[in-house]
Amino acid sequence: MSVDVHKGPSPDTIQVELDRRSYPICISEGATGQFAAMATDVLEDLSHTLIIYDEAVQPYASELGQQLRGFNEGAIRVDSCPVASGEPSKSIAEYQRLLAWMLEHRADRRSVVIAVGGGVVGDLTGFVAASFARGIRFVQVPTTLLAMVDSSVGGKTGINLPGGKNMVGAFWQPSFVWIDTATMTTLPDRSYLSGLAEVVKYGVIDDAAFFAWLSDNAQRLAQRDAAALAHAIRESCSSKARVVRDDERETSGRRAILNYGHTFAHAIEATAGYGTVLHGEAVSIGMQMAATLAIDLGLCDPELLTAQTQVLENCKLPITFADADPDAMLPIMMRDKKVSHGNLRFILPSSIGNVDLVGNVPSGLVRQAIEAHR
Amino acid sequence: MSVDVHKGPSPDTIQVELDRRSYPICISEGATGQFAAMATDVLEDLSHTLIIYDEAVQPYASELGQQLRGFNEGAIRVDSCPVASGEPSKSIAEYQRLLAWMLEHRADRRSVVIAVGGGVVGDLTGFVAASFARGIRFVQVPTTLLAMVDSSVGGKTGINLPGGKNMVGAFWQPSFVWIDTATMTTLPDRSYLSGLAEVVKYGVIDDAAFFAWLSDNAQRLAQRDAAALAHAIRESCSSKARVVRDDERETSGRRAILNYGHTFAHAIEATAGYGTVLHGEAVSIGMQMAATLAIDLGLCDPELLTAQTQVLENCKLPITFADADPDAMLPIMMRDKKVSHGNLRFILPSSIGNVDLVGNVPSGLVRQAIEAHR
Repeated sequence: MSVDVHKGPSPDTIQVELDRRSYPICISEGATGQFAAMATDVLEDLSHTLIIYDEAVQPYASELGQQLRGFNEGAIRVDSCPVASGEPSKSIAEYQRLLAWMLEHRADRRSVVIAVGGGVVGDLTGFVAASFARGIRFVQVPTTLLAMVDSSVGGKTGINLPGGKNMVGAFWQPSFVWIDTATMTTLPDRSYLSGLAEVVKYGVIDDAAFFAWLSDNAQRLAQRDAAALAHAIRESCSSKARVVRDDERETSGRRAILNYGHTFAHAIEATAGYGTVLHGEAVSIGMQMAATLAIDLGLCDPELLTAQTQVLENCKLPITFADADPDAMLPIMMRDKKVSHGNLRFILPSSIGNVDLVGNVPSGLVRQAIEAHR
Repeated sequence: MSVDVHKGPSPDTIQVELDRRSYPICISEGATGQFAAMATDVLEDLSHTLIIYDEAVQPYASELGQQLRGFNEGAIRVDSCPVASGEPSKSIAEYQRLLAWMLEHRADRRSVVIAVGGGVVGDLTGFVAASFARGIRFVQVPTTLLAMVDSSVGGKTGINLPGGKNMVGAFWQPSFVWIDTATMTTLPDRSYLSGLAEVVKYGVIDDAAFFAWLSDNAQRLAQRDAAALAHAIRESCSSKARVVRDDERETSGRRAILNYGHTFAHAIEATAGYGTVLHGEAVSIGMQMAATLAIDLGLCDPELLTAQTQVLENCKLPITFADADPDAMLPIMMRDKKVSHGNLRFILPSSIGNVDLVGNVPSGLVRQAIEAHR
């Protein structure tokens, strides 16, 4: 992992190194004008792009499309297709519609798919790219904070089954990730703030120094301070790149640390009905439940929860969920992909910056942790 | 690549070596009793299997299931699900049905999927395994000759889109392949013979010595001579394993040689309506068209076509297709995954045992090759 920071108008670039491959994450504020040059630089033989975008960011998708069309004397063919905002788009029906659209627009193995939007569009489009013609290249252009710091990096793609979030998909790495923080100006506050939950997560699971910075700067992030935001995105992507490099396919257990708070969060989202509670909000509450569980198991000091609570509150994130119902949540947690044949497992902190995968957790304590935060 | 041949009741085993991984292909006649031992030997921590089988081979699937259930004091949970015979099962609808069935039976990342049937079930089930929970282990148990010598080895999985055969899928390698030639006793003659087309293909593309053997023994194969059949399957799988080892994901071009005759064949199958002409029959006719195209391009001697024709006829395979219509076939060939942005490319022989990927083939000559074999 090398973090290579350029000054000036060019985007900052983080190189994600995987087994035998690596790809860059470019971070900028308003460097749109350099997108086509970057794309042709990274993608050999670029002659057909398919932009799949969230309808909410149509103007930005259109800007990227116009730039690609205007580049290199019109040598790049551009097709575009909108996707409705929201989790219901991560469905088999939408997957099927996009595959048919790709075929209709004569996509082939050398075509490149560009996902413009939040996690929903990135996950869905990534799985389309992973499986069309058994896998073609794709580019992630995240336009929400949550997608910038989490879902766009690391190659997890997928859609939902009724009753099973992210139950179908593939590990499929993007050719590059293009993060332009200027795309967030139209992002509603609630969505923006929810993205901060994943930012805080990196501090707790991987980086005590970054957590200390967050303790001092969370309020600046909540106010969308540009410099603080750029720093937080860079640190978050660097953390994620380190973890993914060590365990691309979640086989060694290392990558599972990214799921801190997520087993609770998925159950909160599912029981609240997807969309009622935003993913980042659920992660915030889930991290509180996980920290409580860790304390109850004697794995860490109560001060960890105090410190985490303070940062999350300064980020204006919810830390309780009034409708949390253990009877509804536990059966869902048992179906989580991290559960191994009925053995409830959680990512739990031992101290700030350090977490472990803990198995055979008694369901009574899980219940108690849920009840502590409602 | 090492071919390790055991004598006696144990199956012959070919080891398929891939980048960082390898898996065995076990070939036997009636070694069913050793399946569970083999499975637990290869698959660490085997406690849940999901058998997805072609309804036509229900008795064999049931035998495997009973054996797994009886092994190791009932430690292996077994769920089974039939799939209707025939190409229409390689659909998004069937894919979706199987994913829901997996979820319903509490499949998780440690579960193992076992595909029992021909290429349709293997391709469909393989893609289910590749994408459920972003990829779980699976075992191929091919029960048709075509699947034994071709689709079960090499990790290509996928389903069809309306208008696009195998247009969605993944490269996903099995944990092992279990070939029991005794499962073919109920296979209809036409289906059995069609599998011989892929066997002949290996001789033409990769192995002149095997082609010479075929010139002498094709009639024994057509009569289902057990010893000849075992030899042909072993040589075919060894050829395929060599090619796949060198180019798992069809990126270097090497793996494309396996598609000899297939660009024509897919167009024949599509225009005839899937199922009218069997895949192997279409490959037989397609190889004749490809050999003709190679001769017309001055790439090989006419004697190659004569030798190939003799072997295919001795295998009782069709070598012409009366309804071949260039006007209908060419547009389909242009959509083939091997076509690169409109450049028609074919795998064409220069001599027996040697083929090349040839690009920029004039459509007039393609038309002529089609017309020569109708």
